[in-house]
Amino acid sequence: MESNVVFTNYVAEAIEEVVSAVKPSKVFVLVDENTQEAALPVVQSQSDTVKGATVIVVKPGDENKNLESLSYIWQQLGDSGATRHSLLINLGGGVVTDMGAFAAATFKRGIHFVNVPTSLLAAVDASVGGKTGINFNGLKNEIGAFKDADTVIVSSIFFNTLSATEMRSGYGEMLKHALIKGSEMLSDLMKQDVLEVGRERMLDLLKENVGVKQEIVSQDPTEKGLRKALNLGHTTGHAFESLALKRKSPIPHGYAVAYGLVVELILSVMKQGFPSETMQKVANYIYENFRAFAITCDDYDEIIDFMRHDKKNVDASAINFTLLKNVGELALDSTATTDEIKAALDIYRDVMHI
Amino acid sequence: MESNVVFTNYVAEAIEEVVSAVKPSKVFVLVDENTQEAALPVVQSQSDTVKGATVIVVKPGDENKNLESLSYIWQQLGDSGATRHSLLINLGGGVVTDMGAFAAATFKRGIHFVNVPTSLLAAVDASVGGKTGINFNGLKNEIGAFKDADTVIVSSIFFNTLSATEMRSGYGEMLKHALIKGSEMLSDLMKQDVLEVGRERMLDLLKENVGVKQEIVSQDPTEKGLRKALNLGHTTGHAFESLALKRKSPIPHGYAVAYGLVVELILSVMKQGFPSETMQKVANYIYENFRAFAITCDDYDEIIDFMRHDKKNVDASAINFTLLKNVGELALDSTATTDEIKAALDIYRDVMHI
Repeated sequence: MESNVVFTNYVAEAIEEVVSAVKPSKVFVLVDENTQEAALPVVQSQSDTVKGATVIVVKPGDENKNLESLSYIWQQLGDSGATRHSLLINLGGGVVTDMGAFAAATFKRGIHFVNVPTSLLAAVDASVGGKTGINFNGLKNEIGAFKDADTVIVSSIFFNTLSATEMRSGYGEMLKHALIKGSEMLSDLMKQDVLEVGRERMLDLLKENVGVKQEIVSQDPTEKGLRKALNLGHTTGHAFESLALKRKSPIPHGYAVAYGLVVELILSVMKQGFPSETMQKVANYIYENFRAFAITCDDYDEIIDFMRHDKKNVDASAINFTLLKNVGELALDSTATTDEIKAALDIYRDVMHI
Repeated sequence: MESNVVFTNYVAEAIEEVVSAVKPSKVFVLVDENTQEAALPVVQSQSDTVKGATVIVVKPGDENKNLESLSYIWQQLGDSGATRHSLLINLGGGVVTDMGAFAAATFKRGIHFVNVPTSLLAAVDASVGGKTGINFNGLKNEIGAFKDADTVIVSSIFFNTLSATEMRSGYGEMLKHALIKGSEMLSDLMKQDVLEVGRERMLDLLKENVGVKQEIVSQDPTEKGLRKALNLGHTTGHAFESLALKRKSPIPHGYAVAYGLVVELILSVMKQGFPSETMQKVANYIYENFRAFAITCDDYDEIIDFMRHDKKNVDASAINFTLLKNVGELALDSTATTDEIKAALDIYRDVMHI
């Protein structure tokens, strides 16, 4: 099965289309306290379906993407009379789309659901590709399933309520897709500041950019091979996120990915002949837009330890990376030794002016 | 995806075969306190894999097929170092195979799992067909997923520890499969008492009988159409189970199905021209082997109310049944009115000597 991804700023119309195709017995909308305030009224005012739907509200933030919230969603669905033929509309960022999708995938062994991402990061990453889940036992996305939404409705109409940091965070993942796709898309993105992109232009960019992910996911939905391409920047990015969390000053996911891209392009230069000047250009762009995640050589061992525990590592002795031979040319299943990673982190500090 | 179902009394060998195909990073065995005592030592003594595996133990019984036990399994997997490439062997009855399969389907978005049913009911029903899940919010299998086991190992070696009631309960589901398949299989089953069937003959019967379910499920894994065939006897059976539970004297699932078969064969006579003498013969066999579930006409409204809330009912106005035109001839998506159901329950009391 594959998601139908619709790119449109007429969100209400797209929802009505899904409803007339699915003919659900009942419609539910999942929001968090933020999107309840900022996004729900917009869609309610345009869609009779959403106006008449039962609203389920969860607390915002990744710390609430947990079993307690999930159980609350299941309970609300059941108590409000959801059947196998009901529809859940997940209206929110990645927390809402990941957790709502998992709730829908498992309620009565699966009901219909639609993702309507309201953040750039969710639009470009979380809402598409069938990865659903919650955090558990202190680990991100420890529990979940692969399940495609009936439809993902990607729009840019909710982005005006996002902070500059949230917009940049989404752009970090967009840069990753461009690096996987090719130099034209990459230079397109690096030509501009994400904060200056207008609503319609953003929708066009999304269509192209999310297309990269769709193409990969459709060839490898359950991450047996090619889908690892999407892990570019993430082995390091996740390690940086974990370290930041431990320091009690978390960094946004897309920022961590951007910094991770710099480290992994350096490894690509070292191990796969990736052109050094391109790495330098990307690093400059990232430094200018995201600044840097500050590390010292005292952090290296801990960073490498976090990398070792990545879900994607088959065994603990090798550290896997997705690297590039060039922009648009993947080197899946690359590995690096501890010494090579340390050398790359040295260069990272150098190019990022740390 | 489809399960590989293996029929063998060499269970340890079958497990070793799975392990050499999957090459798991780590092996786990899920048991309940009963199968920990009765079945686990048998398999441990024959299989080095199982001997070396990490054992997870849950409390037995349907009342423990809940979120708390599920969460405990997830926790144990995580804390004992399960990775995406680990294997979970579910060794037990339907509670263990349903819940273990759901745990495996959702841990890190899905790890390998094998079902080794130890009861006749689980062998013939729960362990095959990809329905996984837990009870939630007072409802059976409210939360779950469709996910096939890597392999289901069906054997009869564990049945010597089962009670007569447990054996008959499994036989109830076997009768259902025979009614769906054809008169030869049905008269084969009705010729004998389940308690008298030897180990090898039972394995042959299982192969044939589970084959009926496999064939149906492979054509309709997520119950959009044909799979409803397997619901024969269950609309009434579930209602009887619910009523028995409310009376605080629960009846085994396969018994409820056997009684439900009688009611639904009566409806088949009334509505689909099913031969009355065949219905009478099956009712006699069931009465002799299962006795009857006692109801009075004062229970009718409550029974019908339970039927109305069945998960498979699309809307509350019609009550759906899977009926038969004859043995082996399905009449899917049949409906019956309240009056027709009451008339059938009258006849049920008559043929079952209540």
